[in-house]
Amino acid sequence: MKRRDFFKKAATVAGSAALGGSTLLANETGHPVDNRKVSDIALPQKRPLITYSDRPPLLETPREVFANAITPNDLFFVRWHMPMIPTYINPHYFSISIDGEVKKPMKVSLKSLKTEFEAVEITSVLQCGGNSRSAFRPTPSGIQWGPGAMGCAKWKGARLKDVLAKVGLKPNAAWIKFNGLEKPVYSKTDRFVRALELSKMHDDIIIAYEMNGEELPYLNGFPVRLILPGFYSDSWIKMLSDITVTDTKPPLHFMDHAYRIPDNNCECETPDHLAKKTKPIEEMNVNSLIGYPVNGTKVRKDAELIVRGVAFDGGHGIARVEISTDGGTGWQAASLDDGKQGKYAYRTFTYRLTPDRTGSLSIMARATNTKGETQPFAHEVKWNRGGYKYNGIDEVAVEVLS
Amino acid sequence: MKRRDFFKKAATVAGSAALGGSTLLANETGHPVDNRKVSDIALPQKRPLITYSDRPPLLETPREVFANAITPNDLFFVRWHMPMIPTYINPHYFSISIDGEVKKPMKVSLKSLKTEFEAVEITSVLQCGGNSRSAFRPTPSGIQWGPGAMGCAKWKGARLKDVLAKVGLKPNAAWIKFNGLEKPVYSKTDRFVRALELSKMHDDIIIAYEMNGEELPYLNGFPVRLILPGFYSDSWIKMLSDITVTDTKPPLHFMDHAYRIPDNNCECETPDHLAKKTKPIEEMNVNSLIGYPVNGTKVRKDAELIVRGVAFDGGHGIARVEISTDGGTGWQAASLDDGKQGKYAYRTFTYRLTPDRTGSLSIMARATNTKGETQPFAHEVKWNRGGYKYNGIDEVAVEVLS
Repeated sequence: MKRRDFFKKAATVAGSAALGGSTLLANETGHPVDNRKVSDIALPQKRPLITYSDRPPLLETPREVFANAITPNDLFFVRWHMPMIPTYINPHYFSISIDGEVKKPMKVSLKSLKTEFEAVEITSVLQCGGNSRSAFRPTPSGIQWGPGAMGCAKWKGARLKDVLAKVGLKPNAAWIKFNGLEKPVYSKTDRFVRALELSKMHDDIIIAYEMNGEELPYLNGFPVRLILPGFYSDSWIKMLSDITVTDTKPPLHFMDHAYRIPDNNCECETPDHLAKKTKPIEEMNVNSLIGYPVNGTKVRKDAELIVRGVAFDGGHGIARVEISTDGGTGWQAASLDDGKQGKYAYRTFTYRLTPDRTGSLSIMARATNTKGETQPFAHEVKWNRGGYKYNGIDEVAVEVLS
Repeated sequence: MKRRDFFKKAATVAGSAALGGSTLLANETGHPVDNRKVSDIALPQKRPLITYSDRPPLLETPREVFANAITPNDLFFVRWHMPMIPTYINPHYFSISIDGEVKKPMKVSLKSLKTEFEAVEITSVLQCGGNSRSAFRPTPSGIQWGPGAMGCAKWKGARLKDVLAKVGLKPNAAWIKFNGLEKPVYSKTDRFVRALELSKMHDDIIIAYEMNGEELPYLNGFPVRLILPGFYSDSWIKMLSDITVTDTKPPLHFMDHAYRIPDNNCECETPDHLAKKTKPIEEMNVNSLIGYPVNGTKVRKDAELIVRGVAFDGGHGIARVEISTDGGTGWQAASLDDGKQGKYAYRTFTYRLTPDRTGSLSIMARATNTKGETQPFAHEVKWNRGGYKYNGIDEVAVEVLS
């Protein structure tokens, strides 16, 4: 790094307050922070994970878990917004209240959800919109996630469509509002509520009561959670308790102000020129992560190393994953699994290489979906104030020993 | 521990050479050593594992992997007997030579194995006969395994029965001898060869060319391995290269002298009175392991802890797994998975508990199979000179914080 660059970077990291916004680089990204330690202490029903906070609970999954197609429940990341979450829910008395522009407002009990509707299971990735946010400079506010604010599980439940058919939508029904049991401390704070346009409802949206064959972990939304395959997790309301159907889009803090990105072609802006028009983050863009090796893994020269990881997008399907070991100049195809997990799930990849010299070896992974959308290099990812939708080409460096 | 006990134990650990066999406790077992560190360095195609030796390669899987139904290839344990293993095999030229008491001796190429025989897939546990050997006192010779010399994978290949049908067995055929590509350094050393009585052959014995949907890892027997579901792994010949059919049991060091246990009801003996009659270890006994938590995991008082693990036997099927948190006095049923992996595979279990006081908490797991066979307490496991077939009730201690 040149001396001048160093000062530039130092100024960037120091932030805008002291130096004035105009001295900042317009936008800059790198790789997300990826060396945080797993906590010493396990939260309920979880293994020890990377722990940012326990109130609200904020847990990140370490990189090595992403070598596998399914993320186990006890290793699955956790993200809540409000500090008040019920610590006891009796599933025998739990029900979802459905009202608004419906013909028969009713409470649907957990039992009736399980017995009166067709049970469907869908394998889908759940990813925080701010996953890898720590890659952005200047630093956006929010949790400084590394790359592990995501997971892939088998979700089982009733179709939202079937449940709404039972209450009957009125002709003017246009939006569906979802509310869960997390609550702010101060009563005037907005609750974490999301709404879905009725025209965007499809068969794969479910109200899930099982995750990987078990009841949902408490921290992942027990007893029921909204599953919106292909969408970022801010839409997947946990501990879903209220559904209200409305004729117009309801005003909602977490849709109107948070989880939004610039509504322009690059979905980008600069700290100096924030975009005036924004839109919800919604559909996930194409992404991949190397699960093994991790940074610093020691391997042997002339010994085959199998790189393993996962790739996914918002539901168009992964067309290919490529690997580069020369800093992104040359790319070779990785092997993909059979894709039987479905279009919303992880597609696992493997790539075999045999290091032929000692020292540091960089391994990059890049996924491309069936629409031809691909991952940019980390430094090419465009900045946005929320630090959302990061999908830079992943990179790990291993140490090759003689 | 009383002072006298301490000296007794010290004498035991010091071994028989200095003290004379008769001063030893007759037989004693505890829990296997379970705090070995994962190596810094990955062997080819593997993640870093607990490494006892790299020539021959001896790798153990750490406990936390046993929370899941399938053991990933790169985390699967490795055990070879001979220091000389081919470091290059060309699968295009590889074939298995079949001769002896057959009508048409032939070489079956890897390609014909994959194309000319029905492909079957079976999920089965592979476990070393000496798994957990480090629990035995006095110390038997051999690798001092902790509890991770095992794994469960989906094995795909051709039925042994179908392959033998193609060469045609002569009427006097009675034994099938299997040899692989590992070789001793000294030419007069016995090769690692096993034989199977023809009467014990069944449909589930396969010659596998795939493991968990991929070609077999080199260290797990690439390109083909014999799969004997229900049997300990000493019978699962790796890099299978020669099959010889014989009319009588061939003399074989590794069947006649190693991997044998006392041929009596308790399958036990004492250092002072070694059993005269012995038998091969063959069918696995009922066993279980807690994958999570591990020893020393820190959890919170009043927070639900989900214990996860695996149970299996030699193919009769697991009837139940029970958990004790009071040192083995009271036992409660754990939840079992749906068993769809089949009778030779891991049955995963979960058990939910909420520690109601701080301090150390011991968690024990005990599996029982459909024949009613169950696991003894660790200290009740009977001693044998080889340290084989350990299946003591598993135990981990967690630390409960306020």
